[in-house]
Amino acid sequence: MRLRVKRLDIEADKPIVVMHEEDARRVGTYPGGRVELRHGDRTVVAIVNVTKRAVNPGEIGLYADTCEELDGGLDYVDVQPTSEPKSVMYIRKKLDGKHLSPGEIYEIIMDVVEERLTSAEAAAFVAASYIHGFNMDETVALTEAIVASGDIIEISKGPVVDKHCIGGVPNNRTTMLFVPIMASLGFYVPKTSSRAITSPAGTADTMEVLARVDLSADEIKEITESVGGVMAWGGGTRIAAADDKLIAIRRPLALDPRGMLLASIMAKKRAVSSDYVLIDIPVGPEAKLSSVRKADELAEQFVILGHRLGMKVRAVLTDGSAPVGRGVGPVLEAKDVLEILHGGGPEDLKKKAVELVAHMLEFVRGVPFDEGLKIAEGQIRSGEALRKMKEIIEAQDGDPDVRPEDLKPGKYSETIYAEKDGVVRYISNRGIASLARTAGAPFAKGAGVYIHVSRGQRVRKGDPLITVYAESEKLLRDALALNVSPVRIE
Amino acid sequence: MRLRVKRLDIEADKPIVVMHEEDARRVGTYPGGRVELRHGDRTVVAIVNVTKRAVNPGEIGLYADTCEELDGGLDYVDVQPTSEPKSVMYIRKKLDGKHLSPGEIYEIIMDVVEERLTSAEAAAFVAASYIHGFNMDETVALTEAIVASGDIIEISKGPVVDKHCIGGVPNNRTTMLFVPIMASLGFYVPKTSSRAITSPAGTADTMEVLARVDLSADEIKEITESVGGVMAWGGGTRIAAADDKLIAIRRPLALDPRGMLLASIMAKKRAVSSDYVLIDIPVGPEAKLSSVRKADELAEQFVILGHRLGMKVRAVLTDGSAPVGRGVGPVLEAKDVLEILHGGGPEDLKKKAVELVAHMLEFVRGVPFDEGLKIAEGQIRSGEALRKMKEIIEAQDGDPDVRPEDLKPGKYSETIYAEKDGVVRYISNRGIASLARTAGAPFAKGAGVYIHVSRGQRVRKGDPLITVYAESEKLLRDALALNVSPVRIE
Repeated sequence: MRLRVKRLDIEADKPIVVMHEEDARRVGTYPGGRVELRHGDRTVVAIVNVTKRAVNPGEIGLYADTCEELDGGLDYVDVQPTSEPKSVMYIRKKLDGKHLSPGEIYEIIMDVVEERLTSAEAAAFVAASYIHGFNMDETVALTEAIVASGDIIEISKGPVVDKHCIGGVPNNRTTMLFVPIMASLGFYVPKTSSRAITSPAGTADTMEVLARVDLSADEIKEITESVGGVMAWGGGTRIAAADDKLIAIRRPLALDPRGMLLASIMAKKRAVSSDYVLIDIPVGPEAKLSSVRKADELAEQFVILGHRLGMKVRAVLTDGSAPVGRGVGPVLEAKDVLEILHGGGPEDLKKKAVELVAHMLEFVRGVPFDEGLKIAEGQIRSGEALRKMKEIIEAQDGDPDVRPEDLKPGKYSETIYAEKDGVVRYISNRGIASLARTAGAPFAKGAGVYIHVSRGQRVRKGDPLITVYAESEKLLRDALALNVSPVRIE
Repeated sequence: MRLRVKRLDIEADKPIVVMHEEDARRVGTYPGGRVELRHGDRTVVAIVNVTKRAVNPGEIGLYADTCEELDGGLDYVDVQPTSEPKSVMYIRKKLDGKHLSPGEIYEIIMDVVEERLTSAEAAAFVAASYIHGFNMDETVALTEAIVASGDIIEISKGPVVDKHCIGGVPNNRTTMLFVPIMASLGFYVPKTSSRAITSPAGTADTMEVLARVDLSADEIKEITESVGGVMAWGGGTRIAAADDKLIAIRRPLALDPRGMLLASIMAKKRAVSSDYVLIDIPVGPEAKLSSVRKADELAEQFVILGHRLGMKVRAVLTDGSAPVGRGVGPVLEAKDVLEILHGGGPEDLKKKAVELVAHMLEFVRGVPFDEGLKIAEGQIRSGEALRKMKEIIEAQDGDPDVRPEDLKPGKYSETIYAEKDGVVRYISNRGIASLARTAGAPFAKGAGVYIHVSRGQRVRKGDPLITVYAESEKLLRDALALNVSPVRIE
């Protein structure tokens, strides 16, 4: 059927056409079906949107990209229904509870990356994966497909080590200590991190206070090989390209099929050629995992998957029952990190970072854990870790001479004080995060919360508990209006 | 966050806004998330599309409907993330394999009808329903929710009888005989039918050759009460409104969760106040069901569901191994029907329709089956059924005096002849359907296939087997180019 082209002046992610209801019926297609568009000897497969009003019968709405692909100046196209990609058949196979072969998984992932699936098809895949799960063979195939979907960085030196935390705990910015300490000890750490999605800051947001984080794959390779460590925003690269697409599908459904979670994390490690990977799994009532049994299960799956992919993985369970560090929000977290590297800063964050380094030294070199702790602490005390951090900041186009006191939180602030004498029993991860987030973090870098107290600490009525910082009066008010009391005193 | 409104000059089914990637992050939302738009004291909840190009940072793309809802002339809106509707939580519950309460199912169905769900959420619901299934309580609730979603027709006379065929067999136009015969016997038959989706003709497409089928709920009620029978296009009414939406979600995924199939059919019967319902389940290698065991299971579920909804249901298994009738395509099928009512026409179609009437008479009145057959045949022979059909056609604004010979198939035709002597062993449902469909049915009313032979018939080389009709030379060629031989001779 030949239809007149009506150009639609906005762009779409996917090749979509808009057809009048009557024409769709006449062509034998339907909303979410696929048609082949032909003009001369060029063809494009597009997904059908159906309308009663946006286009008239006899017309077809084409977005700019599709017009270009067929012929810049075209005024008509021939339209016929066409079959769905093979991956849709494999998605149905998964819906039927069957296992998928590596080739089938690869096909699905490539169609996800190329935007050849409708959002309904992609959602059905995530739903089926969530319900039926993936076995380890499928998880390995999924990880390899995600790796293959993007850039791969080969680091010519070694050993290449990496860490990942599954998240859920405010601040907890151990990466920004782990990377310079490990690099100062002669390891290579090509660390990519995410920005915050629902938290007040991701490592990428925090590192961005000190340096540029939107590095290319080439820059990540170069800086790792020359300086020993790098801290880049993973989303700015094409490493594990499929992962961003899969996350975009999963997020609105809030579905985290286990196999996809594992593959998402491990693909990014595999794609930067990590030899040794340390996974930090915080456990606590308001962490992502609240049961030690489930955390142990997850830890084991990380180790097995790593082994199957040719990486050595150790997973450690850590205390996720409260924020780690004092500041929450990009500037406040960067300040904590710099203070530690300068010999001060919050003890809990320093202790956790030092322990992660000791785990890695034990794992890679067989260094006894206690000795590893001393080595890590020594690198901070001697200033070696700070020196390495400056090299990294400089390599990422930041100011290597930045000092903690240069980092200023938002100029609007309000402090909340203890209303009675007592002991700090609980500091709520979620309460702190929602205050910091509402105050503007991570977009307003200076917004966030500073926590003056630690669990177990005795306080007197009138002692400061937390200070909320914002870059505008309004956002400060919004945060305070939440009326959240994240510090419980008993 | 306040954003400048950019009007988008096309309409969308759902309230969707287009935001720049940066603004989405800043507001704390993401593709597929929801935001509340506020202008003055009006608010609208919309689903977020994210772009890098279609709008600039600081702008928000709004479709015409959304602008109107907020304020025709608005130039800015305040945007903040908002929570998803409760139904999304219930969809997650279903994904987790739990049963849903009637209230939860009702909430989901209402959000489907009101387009408050993203296509990903709706697809996840269908996928979860497909995998975990519905128990009978859920199926009853789903049916009742679908009934409640649209118009309900109360027929003040009775008994109200209805039939439904689950489809898959070309022609098989028994409804157009069943309705006038039953109505001529004093029953009331408010029949709504669908148009073809993937077949060469639906009952609505075929009846449309003779009369208007886009009737309102009021017209369906009036004609049923005054004439005794009506044959309307269900899609033209607001009866069981949710069903069209659910079908639109299921079709691209080709998923037919059993509970949704049952609810879809029975909701439409309940909504027109049927007392007695006959379900025709064709069984055959190319029918929708190929196993008698599975057909029996389905039959039982129809009966139980009907009982739970206060309807008496009988389900009969019929021979679905070949087309029923001679013509396939709207005009050719209408011609078969009129010929039977005039005393001739294809024996197999007449026999099947008469049997369905006999089943209904046995079911409602306890008339012995053989006697029911005679009663039904008598209504045709005496011309009573034809007289009633004319009344129905007239009530639906058609020409009551139409005669079979007035109905002309497409003027382009080609006949396919037997290439050898032998016996007709098989006539392929799918082969006939795809020929008729490619020739232009159901949109070109005169397009289709006439089948000259029946199974078991002895033919000689050169005897006509089928004639393909089309309304254009090109579509005739397209159909013949399929090179399909739907009649197998051995």
